[in-house]
Amino acid sequence: MAPPAAIEVEAMTDTQSISQSTPTTFPHKTESFYRRRAPTDNEPKSQWGTAAPATSAQFKHSSTKGKPLARRWDDLLTPETKARKGSTLKAAAGFLSRPGIVSLGGGLPSSSYFPFAQLSVTVPAPGAFSERETSQSGVQLSADKHSLQTGQSIFDISTGLNYGQGHGAAQLLRWVTEHTELVHAPPYADWGCNLTIGSTSAIDMALRMFCAPGDAVLAEAYTFPTFVEASRPMGLRTVGVPMDEQGLEPGAVDGILEHWNPAAHGGARKPRVLYTVPTGQNPTGATMGEERRRMIYEVCCKHDVYILEDEPYYFLQLPTYDADATTQTEKASSHADFLAGLIPSFLSMDVQGRVMRMDSFSKVIAPGSRVGWVTGSEQIMERYKTHVDCSTQGPSGFSQIVLFKLLEEHWGHGGYLDWCKYIRSEYTERRDVIVRACEKHLPRDIVSWVAPKAGMFHWMKVDWKKHPLAASWTHQEIEEQIFMAGVDHGSLVTCGSWFYADDDVEEEQMFFRATYAAAPFDQIDLAIQRFGEALRDVFGLQNQIEEL
Amino acid sequence: MAPPAAIEVEAMTDTQSISQSTPTTFPHKTESFYRRRAPTDNEPKSQWGTAAPATSAQFKHSSTKGKPLARRWDDLLTPETKARKGSTLKAAAGFLSRPGIVSLGGGLPSSSYFPFAQLSVTVPAPGAFSERETSQSGVQLSADKHSLQTGQSIFDISTGLNYGQGHGAAQLLRWVTEHTELVHAPPYADWGCNLTIGSTSAIDMALRMFCAPGDAVLAEAYTFPTFVEASRPMGLRTVGVPMDEQGLEPGAVDGILEHWNPAAHGGARKPRVLYTVPTGQNPTGATMGEERRRMIYEVCCKHDVYILEDEPYYFLQLPTYDADATTQTEKASSHADFLAGLIPSFLSMDVQGRVMRMDSFSKVIAPGSRVGWVTGSEQIMERYKTHVDCSTQGPSGFSQIVLFKLLEEHWGHGGYLDWCKYIRSEYTERRDVIVRACEKHLPRDIVSWVAPKAGMFHWMKVDWKKHPLAASWTHQEIEEQIFMAGVDHGSLVTCGSWFYADDDVEEEQMFFRATYAAAPFDQIDLAIQRFGEALRDVFGLQNQIEEL
Repeated sequence: MAPPAAIEVEAMTDTQSISQSTPTTFPHKTESFYRRRAPTDNEPKSQWGTAAPATSAQFKHSSTKGKPLARRWDDLLTPETKARKGSTLKAAAGFLSRPGIVSLGGGLPSSSYFPFAQLSVTVPAPGAFSERETSQSGVQLSADKHSLQTGQSIFDISTGLNYGQGHGAAQLLRWVTEHTELVHAPPYADWGCNLTIGSTSAIDMALRMFCAPGDAVLAEAYTFPTFVEASRPMGLRTVGVPMDEQGLEPGAVDGILEHWNPAAHGGARKPRVLYTVPTGQNPTGATMGEERRRMIYEVCCKHDVYILEDEPYYFLQLPTYDADATTQTEKASSHADFLAGLIPSFLSMDVQGRVMRMDSFSKVIAPGSRVGWVTGSEQIMERYKTHVDCSTQGPSGFSQIVLFKLLEEHWGHGGYLDWCKYIRSEYTERRDVIVRACEKHLPRDIVSWVAPKAGMFHWMKVDWKKHPLAASWTHQEIEEQIFMAGVDHGSLVTCGSWFYADDDVEEEQMFFRATYAAAPFDQIDLAIQRFGEALRDVFGLQNQIEEL
Repeated sequence: MAPPAAIEVEAMTDTQSISQSTPTTFPHKTESFYRRRAPTDNEPKSQWGTAAPATSAQFKHSSTKGKPLARRWDDLLTPETKARKGSTLKAAAGFLSRPGIVSLGGGLPSSSYFPFAQLSVTVPAPGAFSERETSQSGVQLSADKHSLQTGQSIFDISTGLNYGQGHGAAQLLRWVTEHTELVHAPPYADWGCNLTIGSTSAIDMALRMFCAPGDAVLAEAYTFPTFVEASRPMGLRTVGVPMDEQGLEPGAVDGILEHWNPAAHGGARKPRVLYTVPTGQNPTGATMGEERRRMIYEVCCKHDVYILEDEPYYFLQLPTYDADATTQTEKASSHADFLAGLIPSFLSMDVQGRVMRMDSFSKVIAPGSRVGWVTGSEQIMERYKTHVDCSTQGPSGFSQIVLFKLLEEHWGHGGYLDWCKYIRSEYTERRDVIVRACEKHLPRDIVSWVAPKAGMFHWMKVDWKKHPLAASWTHQEIEEQIFMAGVDHGSLVTCGSWFYADDDVEEEQMFFRATYAAAPFDQIDLAIQRFGEALRDVFGLQNQIEEL
């Protein structure tokens, strides 16, 4: 495969910040983009040091001229969040810039006592991404202990494995800030990023920032269970919004808010927060189109609702399923075409600073990295960082060093986009396998589905009213019978009811979720075949496939 | 340096669990200890798999026979904590043990898409621990992607970088469980460990588990600022307990609790939680002796107070300072002698399950590992794990793999204890350097100190009443003047007032904290000399040293 083309930056209209390139050069770096960085000579060296403070503002390339400032959220932030004070000790670190000062201030251990002289990972060369190719052409990336001091790199073991700031290492914060600007170009002036230890933590922290006990939070009617499991113990009510194949229905969001009756929701005031997974939603696989997103954003503006945009599957936007195509290969395209082909995010249409977007490396690099980032207005980012400082702290230094080596020094922005294209082409194939298996094995008169347009989940609707005992059995009894029949046939899927946002919902419809993320292709086919057999057993149908 | 002797396990009286050794053998493993593990043949292979559930109970060696069960804490746990339900999806994973079942259940990505074929670290050989030695004899440890599948290791990239359980990877949980048993041998039956992402997170989570808004929490009068910064936004009142050079005064704890008056504390009910750093306390450097700990434990039993034992400096217990000795070298001693020489922890005297101990690799391996662990009763560990699952998630997979390779496969328990001895010998030298610098440079008539017996902090008391303007200036004004004079002289220390547990304290005494953790020896000496000059300036004393 040819090396990726340099990334196109024409979409970014500001050219004033174009300046000399960074000193380290790698063949696959997207040179034109990197040249936009501030001149290295003007960079304060101290910005890469141990626990150096940083903000995205240092790393943004485009001009803020003419862009609006974010709305302030003082009326929304909880007392807990407002009460957070910055660390006195970290403030004292301000004196460290005095020339010649010797610090006996901070309790940071000497890196001489870190028992690691080198940290290495073997990773794919750009464009040769598969496990097989990596075994042949994989590249070893190494971090040494004192490369910052020797000038060989701006990040090393000595810095990365010491204490850090709540925003994460400046070195990686720069990369995610640039990536966010490249992909989403938030249309207001004072946006920024903050590294996270993953979106599960970001959800937990966002709920504590924006929701007081007794509050209600809107979400898709079927939603990510961990969001519900985090919310309820905090005393929050999760309120499900009706969905169609594009996810949240704007009219339904508007209706719920317009006619909010606290008495019907345990006294909860009208919701101020919406939690949503717009792309490849878990569990339904629903993906909002651009128009849908604009409508939802408008409704949120109308009712002054803050949006938590959880987007782990954003880069897993798949080409439309084609039943006749044998294989769908990723079309060769420029980075600009690739980005232009993605459905715009809420962040990209957020002129008010009304969105906190959560990105994660979990689905596109590895869940165990425990690294992601949030993007939002500077006010929100500052509060987030202050919370991190006295709770989770920043991400693991091992994770940050490895990701820096991979994303900044090896792949660069362009190489990472190529990787994302590779991953989505793999998921496209997996999606096609499961949909074809469903077409082949499932009884179409009782099961229906829409081929997923993103993500890793296939959502199957079962017409449970056709169950022989539908008149006397409950929804729950039939759902459980189907689930257990699946298990007994050797196929594990998950029940739709496990994903209810509301706890007192009376469900009319019945769904099962199957993921095509991990099983080998033949096993996906086998599991769907078995699930089909289980359904036929339960519904008293002939196992037609076998009898043809 | 000779290889470390095999670790003595005579202190552990149960011999029933002695069984065959693990299949992988490493020269420096503490064989007799490892032989106590359950026979490998009986180990369910699945216990090392992706997101495999585990508890410390699987890994404890000593018998629970005759040991009491922990007290239940239902009366203490907050509504938030009690409301947590386990994950439905993770419960469904129970069906995965069915033979032949194919799972389309969990949304775990395939490890084929993790862009890492190998992860390596270069670390010290056992006994050759310094940076210089490591550059000569360092050993490279490598994790491959599929070693679990191929039988070469029980942990690999494929497993470590996927999603995990809230208790952390079973592979590392086993190591910390064994280490805890070896060092603390908790005297009740149902104790366990849970990995953390560091003790800052453990403090945050413990406060949410045990303290409701409006509650008061006891702590040392001068305490870890992050504890205060985490507590106050939650609506908690931190109440400082008077200290002497051994830290918390038992009579003072008893007195505060005995005569608790809610009206004097904003209506807070009598405290149920004590937060303490018993060893090398931050900021005072105070270390409780064994007798002191027993007295504090007794007072806590009397008033039914739960103890949060935060012990990052536990292995930095230093030999008594000897002004006449030129250097103090770590005496060669067996592992058993080393352990017997440590002051027993609260955990080791906890017959009631009244203690949640927080251990951390931050001060003895590297802060950036973001890995530590908590130890407490099974009830508390189960609640902790359930909270982790919907907030922080377990530690970074990179961190866990590296620590597993280092601690389990390379150093073993004995090698790690040798490393701790090495680290404490380094801190002993550093402590000696700062105390000698103080003896040499500070004006003894206004500054006094007790040489620290543990940790990384030196606490200096300044007799501010001798300040020329003591009659008209406030404590705060004089403290600030001294701090700024230090900065102006090129020496940064921290002010005692930054560490107040109470926010409305009227301080009689004045302290400054200096850390000897990181600066080179000559710089420590220089900074103390400058601080002495600053003090003489402020107090109008001759700069005697220079004039001698």
